[in-house]
Amino acid sequence: MKIVIIGGGAGGLSTASNIRKLDKNAKITVITRDENIAYSPCAIPYVLSGQVDHFKDIIMHQPEDYLERDIEVITRAEVFEVSSGEKTIKYNRIAPLSRIPSGESVELSYDYLVIATGGAPITPPIEGTDLEGVFKIRTIKDGETIKKWAQKSKKVVVVGAGLIGLEMAFGLKKMGLDVTINEMLPQIVPRSLDPSMALIVQKYLEKEGIKVILGKGMEKITGKERVEGVVYEDESFEADMVIMATGVRPETKLAKMAGCELGRWAVKVNEKMQTSIPSVYAVGDCVEVVDAITGHPTQSPLGSTAVRQAKIAARNIAGAGAEFKPVLNAMVSKIGELEFGSVGLTESFATQNGMEVISGKSRALTKARYYPGAKRIDVMMVCNPRGRIIGCQIIAKERVAERVDTMALAIAKNVTCHELSTTEFSYAPPVSMVIDPIILAAEAACEKLKNSLKNK
Amino acid sequence: MKIVIIGGGAGGLSTASNIRKLDKNAKITVITRDENIAYSPCAIPYVLSGQVDHFKDIIMHQPEDYLERDIEVITRAEVFEVSSGEKTIKYNRIAPLSRIPSGESVELSYDYLVIATGGAPITPPIEGTDLEGVFKIRTIKDGETIKKWAQKSKKVVVVGAGLIGLEMAFGLKKMGLDVTINEMLPQIVPRSLDPSMALIVQKYLEKEGIKVILGKGMEKITGKERVEGVVYEDESFEADMVIMATGVRPETKLAKMAGCELGRWAVKVNEKMQTSIPSVYAVGDCVEVVDAITGHPTQSPLGSTAVRQAKIAARNIAGAGAEFKPVLNAMVSKIGELEFGSVGLTESFATQNGMEVISGKSRALTKARYYPGAKRIDVMMVCNPRGRIIGCQIIAKERVAERVDTMALAIAKNVTCHELSTTEFSYAPPVSMVIDPIILAAEAACEKLKNSLKNK
Repeated sequence: MKIVIIGGGAGGLSTASNIRKLDKNAKITVITRDENIAYSPCAIPYVLSGQVDHFKDIIMHQPEDYLERDIEVITRAEVFEVSSGEKTIKYNRIAPLSRIPSGESVELSYDYLVIATGGAPITPPIEGTDLEGVFKIRTIKDGETIKKWAQKSKKVVVVGAGLIGLEMAFGLKKMGLDVTINEMLPQIVPRSLDPSMALIVQKYLEKEGIKVILGKGMEKITGKERVEGVVYEDESFEADMVIMATGVRPETKLAKMAGCELGRWAVKVNEKMQTSIPSVYAVGDCVEVVDAITGHPTQSPLGSTAVRQAKIAARNIAGAGAEFKPVLNAMVSKIGELEFGSVGLTESFATQNGMEVISGKSRALTKARYYPGAKRIDVMMVCNPRGRIIGCQIIAKERVAERVDTMALAIAKNVTCHELSTTEFSYAPPVSMVIDPIILAAEAACEKLKNSLKNK
Repeated sequence: MKIVIIGGGAGGLSTASNIRKLDKNAKITVITRDENIAYSPCAIPYVLSGQVDHFKDIIMHQPEDYLERDIEVITRAEVFEVSSGEKTIKYNRIAPLSRIPSGESVELSYDYLVIATGGAPITPPIEGTDLEGVFKIRTIKDGETIKKWAQKSKKVVVVGAGLIGLEMAFGLKKMGLDVTINEMLPQIVPRSLDPSMALIVQKYLEKEGIKVILGKGMEKITGKERVEGVVYEDESFEADMVIMATGVRPETKLAKMAGCELGRWAVKVNEKMQTSIPSVYAVGDCVEVVDAITGHPTQSPLGSTAVRQAKIAARNIAGAGAEFKPVLNAMVSKIGELEFGSVGLTESFATQNGMEVISGKSRALTKARYYPGAKRIDVMMVCNPRGRIIGCQIIAKERVAERVDTMALAIAKNVTCHELSTTEFSYAPPVSMVIDPIILAAEAACEKLKNSLKNK
């Protein structure tokens, strides 16, 4: 069996590894445009901040490591033709460093093709984005270029206050730059946090010396060859660097070329991760998934999602069978000391989509009150009118990620705030409170529901 | 409505607070033998180790705090008579400091009685346990006495390698003593950890300079008035202090006096936390509960259990209704830097009780491999032959408690290792791995199941 995988990120390489585990004999080829493989793009900001020393540290494997498992990885290669009728692809080698096709074109045939082309950063339609000093973030090379430029810069504006935007802002702040984050919407992390929770993170960023401009869009970036400043409707200021962290658009070009059906957001796949063409699978940021709460198509551009999808795709390609389940987009981020996470829907998203919801909040501690080093923790739990939990947001300086995971499971298993409020949690003074902050938030949600029933 | 609660620990006081939330007018009286209330006995070792400064720090409330919520708390009072026919109790004041009844006896009538008398330390039948320098651990007073004695001691033997034993041993080690832990069974933490996991904790203790003697029982404690040494079948050595951490026996005397039915282990209660006498409820270490996996009666002497039971008892007394669910005994402990936790059944317990089980293990990291400060984490997951998870043990120097909570929910919701292996977990390099160690353990369990099916 011959399998060709396009893309050397988490989705593509995990698919390759998982197929190899299940099938000793398959011929597996991974093709990527990038010169590096198997790195964690979400770790780029941590190299800027100095929390990780070098960009090479975040590269976890080399092509040779895969060759040991009989997986061929071809880097710096651009697939320019996919024929799903013939079951062939063609690629060109990209000349080292120049990124110009060298003209050497190779054809490969496949039994199964896996499209894991990821997403490409979106450049918003602002004048001046082509100036030197305006950066997007996708590859390690982008990270290296940004780091070099930042070393000779003083003032940077990060456009977009999603996770990558905030993490980049913090990294650049740690490099000593004057940092401004600019988000068009009236709050940071609009996709994952409700306004009151976003404000906690915003205040932390501001305490760390990062300026936050909300609710206005940049009109243009000024400069002759390189960035000199940014202009808004009501103000303008100097800057020598602009980072575009304005989101990612699924790369669907090759999938389209293969004839795969596209959905509202990206490549359509069934629960086997199979596209509309039976011999073509797709995983990672280039596919759309089903939201577990709304049942509607959505995007889940997370490394953890790509890895789960890779496992499912591999099992199906190898004939073992498995289904990818609707997603809750469980996410977590750590900015400096502050950890924040979210799973399911925010109250704002639910309300905007016509859903009736209530939310319960708690503000408590991560350890027993008397235990030194206890940190404040904030929990917000969103429930539907029957008490079913549909979302949860958590912020603290420790122990957030695993609580998000507990809540992801609770939501996946249709747990209500009533049930959760008497659920068993572990306790020891140095690591928790005798009543977990999650339980307190569930209790607050129960109380809200009771009062809302009374008022009806 | 008049409610009398006997016991000023987590169970008794939480019941009082919860009733007050639901019923503004109830007359609530709490009676306790202890001179302190509302403290965390499990925090006593942390005062010895110096992680918490003073014993007074672990007392979270004073009787006056409860009086503000119109809850009367009577300390240093011994209930000596319960008449469930008359619905009355009688107590004597214990003279301050002397603990001798002063003869002043008071009668109280009640509509509901709540027995929250906890457990009493078990003294094993060893010669010499009445010598000066032999201690049990139950109250703050015990903690203070131990601390004083330890300050003039050199060598201590802690008998019993359960959680309290280990935590006390570590606390005394931090005070500078030469510490030996002695456990009759061939491993430490026999109730919550399987041998291979217990060994990880044991090695940590040994690295911290604590000696561990396993698989032999102490024959006697020698000394004239005070402890001078301990004697085993094959060795004996000097010691000037012995701590008995050999478990706790439910205090059921008053429940018996009230005519409440006892079960195999302790006071029998239904899912409302009601004893066989409808006007008498019981919560905390003095009751027995149902094991969620085996369905058999078991004990759950945990503060977190007492607090959950208190909520259920209060709701039922106040007429709101609620059911206490079978327990999984989710627990966590932190000894120095090492955190370990367990939930559900161990493989050993299951096997000894005739259950067929398999287990999957993982050894991974708490952060991305390249992120500084990533710590080793060990997970062991126990499943039945259909893959249903029935237990999980986790050890690492961070982020254990919340993973135990995730697993508690997974077990409570009948999740299988197959389902868990594709469950959504959050990910960010500074706080997790892209595939969580829990998932890796679930995958290992799936693999074991597959192989065990093949061999059949």
